Amino acid sequence: MIKEITVRDLDPGKFISEKVNEIQTLVGDGIAINALSGGVDSSVVTMIGHKALGNRLKTLFIDNSLMRKGEPERVANTFGKLGVEIEIVDAREEFLSALKAITDPEEKREAVTQTFYKEVFGRIVRESGAKFLLQGTILTDVDETVAGIKRQHNVFEQLGIDPQEAFGYQIIEPLIQLRKDGVRKVGEAAGLPKEVFDRIPFPGPALAARIVGEVTREKLDVVRVATDIVEQLLKETGAFQYMAILHEDRVTGMRDGQRDFGQQIEIRCWDSVDARTATPTRLSFDLLEKLASEITGNVPGIVSVTYNIATKPPSTIEVV
Amino acid sequence: MIKEITVRDLDPGKFISEKVNEIQTLVGDGIAINALSGGVDSSVVTMIGHKALGNRLKTLFIDNSLMRKGEPERVANTFGKLGVEIEIVDAREEFLSALKAITDPEEKREAVTQTFYKEVFGRIVRESGAKFLLQGTILTDVDETVAGIKRQHNVFEQLGIDPQEAFGYQIIEPLIQLRKDGVRKVGEAAGLPKEVFDRIPFPGPALAARIVGEVTREKLDVVRVATDIVEQLLKETGAFQYMAILHEDRVTGMRDGQRDFGQQIEIRCWDSVDARTATPTRLSFDLLEKLASEITGNVPGIVSVTYNIATKPPSTIEVV
Repeated sequence: MIKEITVRDLDPGKFISEKVNEIQTLVGDGIAINALSGGVDSSVVTMIGHKALGNRLKTLFIDNSLMRKGEPERVANTFGKLGVEIEIVDAREEFLSALKAITDPEEKREAVTQTFYKEVFGRIVRESGAKFLLQGTILTDVDETVAGIKRQHNVFEQLGIDPQEAFGYQIIEPLIQLRKDGVRKVGEAAGLPKEVFDRIPFPGPALAARIVGEVTREKLDVVRVATDIVEQLLKETGAFQYMAILHEDRVTGMRDGQRDFGQQIEIRCWDSVDARTATPTRLSFDLLEKLASEITGNVPGIVSVTYNIATKPPSTIEVV
Repeated sequence: MIKEITVRDLDPGKFISEKVNEIQTLVGDGIAINALSGGVDSSVVTMIGHKALGNRLKTLFIDNSLMRKGEPERVANTFGKLGVEIEIVDAREEFLSALKAITDPEEKREAVTQTFYKEVFGRIVRESGAKFLLQGTILTDVDETVAGIKRQHNVFEQLGIDPQEAFGYQIIEPLIQLRKDGVRKVGEAAGLPKEVFDRIPFPGPALAARIVGEVTREKLDVVRVATDIVEQLLKETGAFQYMAILHEDRVTGMRDGQRDFGQQIEIRCWDSVDARTATPTRLSFDLLEKLASEITGNVPGIVSVTYNIATKPPSTIEVV
């Protein structure tokens, strides 16, 4: 049973020094490794790990082809300014081939997980000699994995998997007692810039979770453009999370007076405190129509755009 | 080239007597037949045809299994009060078996068309001795068929099909110079009650056009419940048309804390004058959330609900 630290009980400075001590004790004079996705959780873990271990923490950005537009460069640049060196690993082909022909959401997550931990990370860890992996798991990930709602890519113990045995390294999860709101406070105290600690969540399977059905390079290119439009237009809303989802269903549209049989982008924009429950953000119709026209005008093959109006539960935040 | 009568130029009373005369001239002392779906167009045609021919117009309501909840009874009852007798024909099995395994929208419409005109109607016409079919085609149907956007079930000439040769009867289309707004005016002048002439459009392929992918009895049952909820909750909006669409894509949801892999209902609600262009109605989020919770709470297998935010064009009003 993990003991939750609510945002009310959280002293971010004290939390950071405790975690720094714990990491130093566990790792000793060894080497640790962590993967930075650019999301809040892994960014905060990177900062805490860096404080604890300095350059004995090796931080990797794995380009899995599932990232947003310009993501690798943006992340390396942000952390470079903070004095944290990031190594970019090109693993695009490995992920794409692992995802080939998979349509079930859970199998998709599993393919991303396996490729990440066993293939790519396994290789890097062996080469680096690191025996410790720092991981940004938070309490909501654990809850949802235990409940069987959604298998987070970064939760092992709860699934009865021993990462030491399976992957050859021990996992350290400094944020596991926190929820998203707590993580943001710790991120601010750790010196992260606002655009990072206040950033909307972007989970591990990344754009693979934004595609219904098989993930292909072509679909990733489509959803990447839509994601960029949605994030640009919604960043001022203050919403908890927002996303573009590429659907597989084909629907009728019209272009230049002719029938055009295309696909839909679904937009979800959530109000939430901790991701356990969430409500669609009440965006203005001016903004909704602008989103739709930008997407149908700029994203190849998209003839229709919808906005999610269901709450979580019974929906979930991500579509798959 | 069909000469449009705009609503501004329309004199509904004069229009009705002209059409009554035309029909009387064409049919002579013969028998005509028409199919009433309960929608505005076929209801207006029924009234005009009845004025012209009295009981020499045989009006059928074909139960194709694609109808809304309680539809056959409601239609028979409304027209009974107006002194027009309706015969209900049970053709549910024929339509369902014609639609089996078809997923392409145009093939779906074609299956409904062929079953309607060749199978069911062909049989009834032969039995009745009618040589004339009164049909509720309007100008927007013609435009869209010619443009190749959507094949309307009730447009033949434009497709180079001779109905006399193909189906054994001649088609009379009294409303072909009008658009929807004109049809409503004529309906009012013809004595139809407001709930009929002001009724939202419900096209020929009916609920088959509200299902992405194969049409089955089970999916019809699902979309029928959702349609009933949407129509109940949106009837006071004054919107041009509103609908529930059952998608095929499967999405993740949660019930009682457990993962539930289900489907989506998309709601479309349109502001439009004549269906040529349309804009999503700016419904309140209170109403949108109520729609979503009623649907996820009452429609089996639905875990998420979306609202269309794209305009026509590039969308179309119906999804398939």
